[in-house]
Amino acid sequence: MPYFDAASSAPLHPVARQALQASLDEGWADPARLYREGRRAGLLLDAAREAAAEAVGCRPDELVFTPSGTYAVHSGVAGALSGRRRVGLHVAVSAVEHSSVLHAAEAHARATGGAVSEVPVDRYGAVAPAAYAQALRADTALACLQSANHEVGTEQPVAEVAELCRSRGVPLLVDAAQSLGWGPVEGAWSLLAASAHKWGGPAGVGLLAVRKGVRFAPPGPADERESGRTPGFENIPAIVAAAASLRAVRAEAAAEAVRLRALVDRIRARVPELVPEVEVVGDPVRRLPHLVTFSCLYVDGEALLHELDRADFSVSSGSSCTSSTLTPSHVLRAMGVLSEGNVRVSLPPGTPEADVDRFLEVLPGVVAGVRERLGATAVASGPVAVEVPGAAEGLVVDALGRRCPIPVIELAKIFGEVPVGGTVTVLSDDAAARLDIPAWCGMRGQEYVGERPADHGDAGAVAYVVRRLS
Amino acid sequence: MPYFDAASSAPLHPVARQALQASLDEGWADPARLYREGRRAGLLLDAAREAAAEAVGCRPDELVFTPSGTYAVHSGVAGALSGRRRVGLHVAVSAVEHSSVLHAAEAHARATGGAVSEVPVDRYGAVAPAAYAQALRADTALACLQSANHEVGTEQPVAEVAELCRSRGVPLLVDAAQSLGWGPVEGAWSLLAASAHKWGGPAGVGLLAVRKGVRFAPPGPADERESGRTPGFENIPAIVAAAASLRAVRAEAAAEAVRLRALVDRIRARVPELVPEVEVVGDPVRRLPHLVTFSCLYVDGEALLHELDRADFSVSSGSSCTSSTLTPSHVLRAMGVLSEGNVRVSLPPGTPEADVDRFLEVLPGVVAGVRERLGATAVASGPVAVEVPGAAEGLVVDALGRRCPIPVIELAKIFGEVPVGGTVTVLSDDAAARLDIPAWCGMRGQEYVGERPADHGDAGAVAYVVRRLS
Repeated sequence: MPYFDAASSAPLHPVARQALQASLDEGWADPARLYREGRRAGLLLDAAREAAAEAVGCRPDELVFTPSGTYAVHSGVAGALSGRRRVGLHVAVSAVEHSSVLHAAEAHARATGGAVSEVPVDRYGAVAPAAYAQALRADTALACLQSANHEVGTEQPVAEVAELCRSRGVPLLVDAAQSLGWGPVEGAWSLLAASAHKWGGPAGVGLLAVRKGVRFAPPGPADERESGRTPGFENIPAIVAAAASLRAVRAEAAAEAVRLRALVDRIRARVPELVPEVEVVGDPVRRLPHLVTFSCLYVDGEALLHELDRADFSVSSGSSCTSSTLTPSHVLRAMGVLSEGNVRVSLPPGTPEADVDRFLEVLPGVVAGVRERLGATAVASGPVAVEVPGAAEGLVVDALGRRCPIPVIELAKIFGEVPVGGTVTVLSDDAAARLDIPAWCGMRGQEYVGERPADHGDAGAVAYVVRRLS
Repeated sequence: MPYFDAASSAPLHPVARQALQASLDEGWADPARLYREGRRAGLLLDAAREAAAEAVGCRPDELVFTPSGTYAVHSGVAGALSGRRRVGLHVAVSAVEHSSVLHAAEAHARATGGAVSEVPVDRYGAVAPAAYAQALRADTALACLQSANHEVGTEQPVAEVAELCRSRGVPLLVDAAQSLGWGPVEGAWSLLAASAHKWGGPAGVGLLAVRKGVRFAPPGPADERESGRTPGFENIPAIVAAAASLRAVRAEAAAEAVRLRALVDRIRARVPELVPEVEVVGDPVRRLPHLVTFSCLYVDGEALLHELDRADFSVSSGSSCTSSTLTPSHVLRAMGVLSEGNVRVSLPPGTPEADVDRFLEVLPGVVAGVRERLGATAVASGPVAVEVPGAAEGLVVDALGRRCPIPVIELAKIFGEVPVGGTVTVLSDDAAARLDIPAWCGMRGQEYVGERPADHGDAGAVAYVVRRLS
């Protein structure tokens, strides 16, 4: 059962399991108490904090443990914004941050009226430091940038952005959830958040580092624990396991990164050869070692996940049909790449080469099967260029009420009937169409003309216009 | 090493340990994912929710897991207040709630300007339903009442208060952290919060139940997990262990409650016989089965804890010298009882009778030792009633800069020189004096006249006046 979704949650590292079990006996008491059980728990907590701080590259008194990475991000964003209230209320974030960062910024905006600027990314999902510099304003209280993207693996230029933030006097919060197991975050960041279960630690532990000198006002009700920055009784066995496993994965990181990078390179190279109409996304070089994402035209992401699960592969997807809100991943949207039939493969440390080879064997048949059931087999090889003299310029495809990938399949099916120079208008009320129809045009070398509201009762209906170039 | 501080944190129950270890293999994946590891984690989470809901006495869809009991209280208070914003901003709490409840109410007041009413308690630490009724106003958005007090064990009349809240249309949040292991909370409560490590579950798990029909707006940034009520990745192994151990302790609760109640009765009866100048506090009957608190005159709480720890007993204290803020416990203050030399004994399930007997053997010598080192041995038997004709009416004891229990010891030492009818004025800048000087008067049958600001440069200096009656 190859599990290829380490970016969601990594299986527990053996060192985490051992440390957790060992500290269940020593770490259950209240570390604030004066008696021996409390002192023992306190010593474990201190040692874990020192180990984690060393791995992060900060002082132990700059680091607190939180109940999750999400909590670390939420409280880090809120605390930094609250501490800099006098400077202003503006926040700059990249457009491809984890939802926890975006939601924390939204909550701030809702509560205070402060503005949020989203810094755009290129087609690989990376921000340009110059674009980040433009987003900073005199009233910018906080900037946020992930170390590497959780959906496509692209590394961000954190050190450059940290330097320009520093020169402008703006603290930078780095969400290092995806990268901390691979190494420390370089550069003069001000706050850093991470999550233990992403590196093979237990669930229930995040960490938040706040550099000395960064103004920080903890949000929420007062509480004495964790320097007043995280309320609630400390989960010491899990914290010990988190710190121990971070050391362990770091010790293995250099060698494992080389090995997994080669396996991911194999997937990046082979998938487009084995599966027609595929787009591999994310930076091919400046990326996390273990993560690759690709999207398959004319494929339903949920069906693809189910079929891969039946074939024993656990992966995730940013397709709209796999999201509870039926919208495609905001990361793929910001990158302007295809979202249908999206697959994210993230290899846990120790993934055998044979599992990757087996995945490459299985994938083409699985994709073909899903396409066949959607009636998309005929279109996969592209439209036949027919010349139909006098054919109506302006064919219309009514795909209202049909979900991704049907609007794109219907577009592809009719495209053969469009004369070169003619247009097709696709009517769709599916959120994925806005991303996938332009992406289809890009992949097929056709012209995406644009969109307009459809002349249709339904407020969500949009008309997407495509012109045939060849 | 008898551990007598179950009310802070109970040692891990064997069932919790087994469940935790068993679910480390099955419960690490993301329960929101469609693949098998995710589905398996989701099944574990569902089963744990059903078991916990049954123990709480609510529907599974009314219960969410949180990272701690503190988090459950904080988010329960904030969510209920936010959901009832249109009704008003007023909150009613008992004066002896856990600090997490009081801090959540304070944070609400700070953020919104809403008022907080503290319902007073009697000398046993219990609220009267009539006093609670008086505190409810037309703009009361939320009432909070603990099921039983965490420092003195007194049970609150939750069912009566819930009924009167219901009749006034005000939701009642019950902090059941101390009692949930012993049984469900009776009555028509609206919200309930609890903490697993108090019943022998692991750290890192709280629970929050919100009855259907209660208006609730989750505070903070949006997140899809736990019905949008608790952000962050679920800690499923710990949740499974929490639910399993709650069932296990409940199965043992009836028999263990009888046994521990008898042991606590023994402590309640014997301590005042064995140790002079002791006040046992809290309701002798309507109380938690396993918890008893007493205070010893002329004793430094921190020294007492250290000596008991050296004698292998782990207990906690509400004395000011054991608090980081150097103020006595707000619970003892609200009850108007002595805070110096305070000891809370809370027996974990399974405590052997022999440990309690040994504690009763050791305690008198420990208290006597601490008193001797403080030079308080001579005063422990009370002042000798001397008649000093013409002695100055109005002796003054300057205890400025001296911490608890010194001001009371100095008062007791000089008291023998005061003629009957004469007064002593104690100058003190220690917060505990405000509680302990009146308590001393009550215990010694002397008159506490009152306090006034001291004619002294120090802003915190207070003059406490005591009149000798006998």
